[in-house]
Amino acid sequence: MSQGFELTVLGTGSASPTLRRNPSAQVLNVRNHLYLIDCAEGTQIALRKNKIKFQQIEHVFISHLHGDHYLGLQGLLSTFSLLGRSKELHIYSPRGLKEIIDMHFSISQSQSNFPIHFHEIDKMNDSLLLENDHLKVFALTLKHRIPTFGFLFKEKKKARHINGPLVKELKIPYYAFEQLKKGEDYINKENDEVYSFEKLTFPEDPSYSYAYCSDTAYLPGLSEQIKEVDILYHETTFMQKDEALAKKTFHSTCIEAALIAKKANAKMLLMGHYSSRYLNEESMLEECKSVFENSHLTQDGDIIKLS
Amino acid sequence: MSQGFELTVLGTGSASPTLRRNPSAQVLNVRNHLYLIDCAEGTQIALRKNKIKFQQIEHVFISHLHGDHYLGLQGLLSTFSLLGRSKELHIYSPRGLKEIIDMHFSISQSQSNFPIHFHEIDKMNDSLLLENDHLKVFALTLKHRIPTFGFLFKEKKKARHINGPLVKELKIPYYAFEQLKKGEDYINKENDEVYSFEKLTFPEDPSYSYAYCSDTAYLPGLSEQIKEVDILYHETTFMQKDEALAKKTFHSTCIEAALIAKKANAKMLLMGHYSSRYLNEESMLEECKSVFENSHLTQDGDIIKLS
Repeated sequence: MSQGFELTVLGTGSASPTLRRNPSAQVLNVRNHLYLIDCAEGTQIALRKNKIKFQQIEHVFISHLHGDHYLGLQGLLSTFSLLGRSKELHIYSPRGLKEIIDMHFSISQSQSNFPIHFHEIDKMNDSLLLENDHLKVFALTLKHRIPTFGFLFKEKKKARHINGPLVKELKIPYYAFEQLKKGEDYINKENDEVYSFEKLTFPEDPSYSYAYCSDTAYLPGLSEQIKEVDILYHETTFMQKDEALAKKTFHSTCIEAALIAKKANAKMLLMGHYSSRYLNEESMLEECKSVFENSHLTQDGDIIKLS
Repeated sequence: MSQGFELTVLGTGSASPTLRRNPSAQVLNVRNHLYLIDCAEGTQIALRKNKIKFQQIEHVFISHLHGDHYLGLQGLLSTFSLLGRSKELHIYSPRGLKEIIDMHFSISQSQSNFPIHFHEIDKMNDSLLLENDHLKVFALTLKHRIPTFGFLFKEKKKARHINGPLVKELKIPYYAFEQLKKGEDYINKENDEVYSFEKLTFPEDPSYSYAYCSDTAYLPGLSEQIKEVDILYHETTFMQKDEALAKKTFHSTCIEAALIAKKANAKMLLMGHYSSRYLNEESMLEECKSVFENSHLTQDGDIIKLS
């Protein structure tokens, strides 16, 4: 498990599972909290293969209800129950998923052993889906054939690090540490002496952000919503020569994904959701790099870690 | 592809997929006609791994609507469409599957590119589900927590083989071959001479039968419905020491499966649907063999061929 900010890409294919690629699923680990993003068929096996302690998943984000983004969820929920889960699970998705899951439970005369909270994402609602001690998660309205949302994970500002030897030497009381870590000065009320947090602490670790954008047609305005993002995963289903097909199916080309990364001033672009028609991935990578240098192909099982 | 009678076991686990076992799915190949039996999550990948030309599947039989027996079907249907299938597909299952599939198509705003015919299995109806040139398929009423059916595949009597040199020598006309192959004598109407089919043909190849019985509690009467079956697959979820658990969950023990095989005078028992609690499969096999000698463990990917 990671103390940092770690993305595991479980599936990088589109449409159908193949022997080489699962369809979409990813796990984001933020300080040992696991967030599952999309859950195609085969996700639970991919979680096992990648040795992810999947009972620790607390939140599941489903971008849209095409089969290659959610068909593994029912089986995963069932496995959670069989393994004795009692911890609640939050599922965020466009309208319809609850009805699908409920129908399965009803027809199979089974039920979940743990509470499942469904959160319906709607573009008319507040885009803030989740806020906890560590991060905020926002919905991004994408443009696909059915209602589809991306997800922006933004870590909150972290605590500064106490300068241990110095606070000891100056006899700063322990109860003052929290405010110092937050960036507030400490005032000794007995003598009104002010101790600057900048002196008594080291700077906090950086806070990272991750945007997941799949599936979507080219959507120039998207870059505004993900400005300065550290990691951008943007679908690159097609190459530029198949731009017409991308338009028709509401997917993006490599060049378009790279344009979004460039306009957003993202630090890094992760590619994925490749059409199985392309055997030479390097050509796809070259297309992205021609617009945005820090582009990377992803493969099933890849881990991207910031710390 | 096989000209014979060939069973490929795609999944031998129960409940949840693991790195070692998929849940239930099998393909029966009878003279190049493919019948899919159950379709757990991961079946389409297992079909690819086993190099089965899965677009040739014409009929799908789903025993019951617990997730470990059907959750791979939606993805498989979607892949059929994506690969351009136009050939119709027949799906046989207890009530509810059509509603589940329809809901997915509705919510994902997608549809099948090929005709799907749903056949609802009901124990009040005729047990004959399908009859074609090669075989008949019957439903077997099992005893599980929800409506569940096994399937009995019975090859029809095959054609006898023409004795080529002899029919040539005796100048038997070509149009008489079909009746001879069926076991009818040929009469030369010009001189009323009778040619015995037994003389002009060699005996037909044997006709085989296969019974799939999963999931089910011990059901002694089942043996009557599958008398003399060539291959019996009967779930062996539990060992005898866990008989109480088998009863509680409406599953069978190894001993119980073997008793069914023995009473039915089956030629061979295939074991499967193992609970993941047992690491030593040999002990399970020993239990079966103590009652029915010709018992066999199955593993994912096993092929059982009669010809």
